[in-house]
Amino acid sequence: MTQHDPVRVAINGYGVIGKRVATAVLAQKDMRLAGVVDIATDWRLRPLEEQGIDLYAASSEHAQTMRGAGFTIAGTLDALLGQVDVVVDCTPKRIAAQNAEIYRANGRKFIVHGGEKHDVTGHSFVAEVSFDSAAGRAATRVVSCNTTSIVRTLTALKRAGLLKRARGTLLRRATDPWESHLGGIMNTLVPEPDIPSHQGPDAQSVDPQLDVVTMAVKVPQTLAHLHYWSVLLTRNASKEEVLDAFRASSRIALIRAGDGLAAINTVKELMADLGRPHDNLYEVALWEDMLKVEGDELFYAYMVDNQAIVIPDTIDAIRALTGLARTAEDSIAQTNETLGIRAAFC
Amino acid sequence: MTQHDPVRVAINGYGVIGKRVATAVLAQKDMRLAGVVDIATDWRLRPLEEQGIDLYAASSEHAQTMRGAGFTIAGTLDALLGQVDVVVDCTPKRIAAQNAEIYRANGRKFIVHGGEKHDVTGHSFVAEVSFDSAAGRAATRVVSCNTTSIVRTLTALKRAGLLKRARGTLLRRATDPWESHLGGIMNTLVPEPDIPSHQGPDAQSVDPQLDVVTMAVKVPQTLAHLHYWSVLLTRNASKEEVLDAFRASSRIALIRAGDGLAAINTVKELMADLGRPHDNLYEVALWEDMLKVEGDELFYAYMVDNQAIVIPDTIDAIRALTGLARTAEDSIAQTNETLGIRAAFC
Repeated sequence: MTQHDPVRVAINGYGVIGKRVATAVLAQKDMRLAGVVDIATDWRLRPLEEQGIDLYAASSEHAQTMRGAGFTIAGTLDALLGQVDVVVDCTPKRIAAQNAEIYRANGRKFIVHGGEKHDVTGHSFVAEVSFDSAAGRAATRVVSCNTTSIVRTLTALKRAGLLKRARGTLLRRATDPWESHLGGIMNTLVPEPDIPSHQGPDAQSVDPQLDVVTMAVKVPQTLAHLHYWSVLLTRNASKEEVLDAFRASSRIALIRAGDGLAAINTVKELMADLGRPHDNLYEVALWEDMLKVEGDELFYAYMVDNQAIVIPDTIDAIRALTGLARTAEDSIAQTNETLGIRAAFC
Repeated sequence: MTQHDPVRVAINGYGVIGKRVATAVLAQKDMRLAGVVDIATDWRLRPLEEQGIDLYAASSEHAQTMRGAGFTIAGTLDALLGQVDVVVDCTPKRIAAQNAEIYRANGRKFIVHGGEKHDVTGHSFVAEVSFDSAAGRAATRVVSCNTTSIVRTLTALKRAGLLKRARGTLLRRATDPWESHLGGIMNTLVPEPDIPSHQGPDAQSVDPQLDVVTMAVKVPQTLAHLHYWSVLLTRNASKEEVLDAFRASSRIALIRAGDGLAAINTVKELMADLGRPHDNLYEVALWEDMLKVEGDELFYAYMVDNQAIVIPDTIDAIRALTGLARTAEDSIAQTNETLGIRAAFC
């Protein structure tokens, strides 16, 4: 492969993340989607044929069952691995850790997601922070939705010299929309039993210097997570200084409650109105008019689309591992343009 | 009235708070419920007759309509005011402020609730903090559910010499259960547009020394509020010291997620199992096993039954205004015993 050939990408697992990664890869000029691997036999894989994406089976046993269910199967994972440069693993939690051995044995670069532990790849990825250290590596882990949002926002404050320590309360959506018929909580709130919750330490897997503590609670809705933060600044600051710090990140988009974006459902509706695939909100959507600075203390809230926020970072991770882009800035700029990522929605 | 005659209590407004106050007053040996005033003409007032509580109408016009709907009306508010020592106003927000003029003109002591502003009475009440300053006053305001919980918990830390400053995120239930058919939010989260939210300053109306900032968000459930707190302590402390501080308040009950009380619905079910009227949780239910101390920082979460938490304080406010009890301790002990208030549910 020369620098100018498109990188050949395989996606293993066509679920909530996998299908969004597929759409995003198709939008990149420097990548080619070689195929998608799955094991399902129902409606979830039907859109692949319409999109002209080759479907592979995880094993020959799965291939037989899937063919029996009427799907055209191009081959197995093993065969696909011979034709690609990098695998994006989007299988359910803990399965990717087993797959990692297969990718390694086949000498393929790979990306896992935030359900896996840092140790699975030894490197944790958020484009704005750890692109450079991922360059040329065999593998990285794109951290979870909540962790991605934490690293983006706290890094913005840190780069402005404003961050001392951050304490956050995370309201986690109960379940994903597509599987909410399988059961989620109803008319209650379920605190995560451990304080601090795991997202703080996970953010430190990307940047060990972050002084961050999180608490989390599951809430009965399916749309997105919502974060509330109390941050101690290094000094007294103005609201405008803080907003400028957030504006310096291209993946934090300011929104305004006063503009009618008063709740998470209205933000999702706007993403649909903008014609984004799956109504994806790739940005951290941070309420500009709610944000408050009192002396050296900062308070704010933002929304995290748990199904979409890691998609741009996954695209950047592909470029980092395969050398498609020399700098984080180059990769981020390409990804932002192809996905229509915005600095603000107001 | 001598010190030994029961205090005669009128309740104006038989809604979510009024009906609970009525039941609580009936359980007090030193009080007599003279009557309840309302304007409704439907099912909501039917339980009064079964309980043997006299029903009054807010005006003669209302009396006529209510009689037309089949209710036995003992008279009007004006008539009832001539027979009581104190009125507990439980009418909807802002109506109590107008009623206050009527109570004053009739020389009756009165209590309003947290929907009204501090200025309506010039005094804000939480039994453990402002009983003494309410003694003998003409009127006081029992603060809102959230504010009551904040004052109880932060006062406990303050009295142990541990409180420096507290920052909280409040998850507010969308609507009360009895009126959830009238519409509440569904499958979304609605941030309160102002940060800080009003509960912090409201807690300062009881104790101006509290360094407290709150943020609030409405969540799609009807059971209770849930608070998450990050507190900076005056010094490093142990978890046991902090728990002892909370245990020193008789109106904070420790619960354990590990005991199966892992969410707010299970706590409400326990209140029902204990046979409490309306499944009332009068205490702040604070998760002992989730609570975490890290150096001089404290993190914890608790549940607030917005319909019930102010009931014991309202009973104590009656005693404070009318001189029924000489000390906060005496009143609180009586109220706790009659309502079955507990130090822990584990």
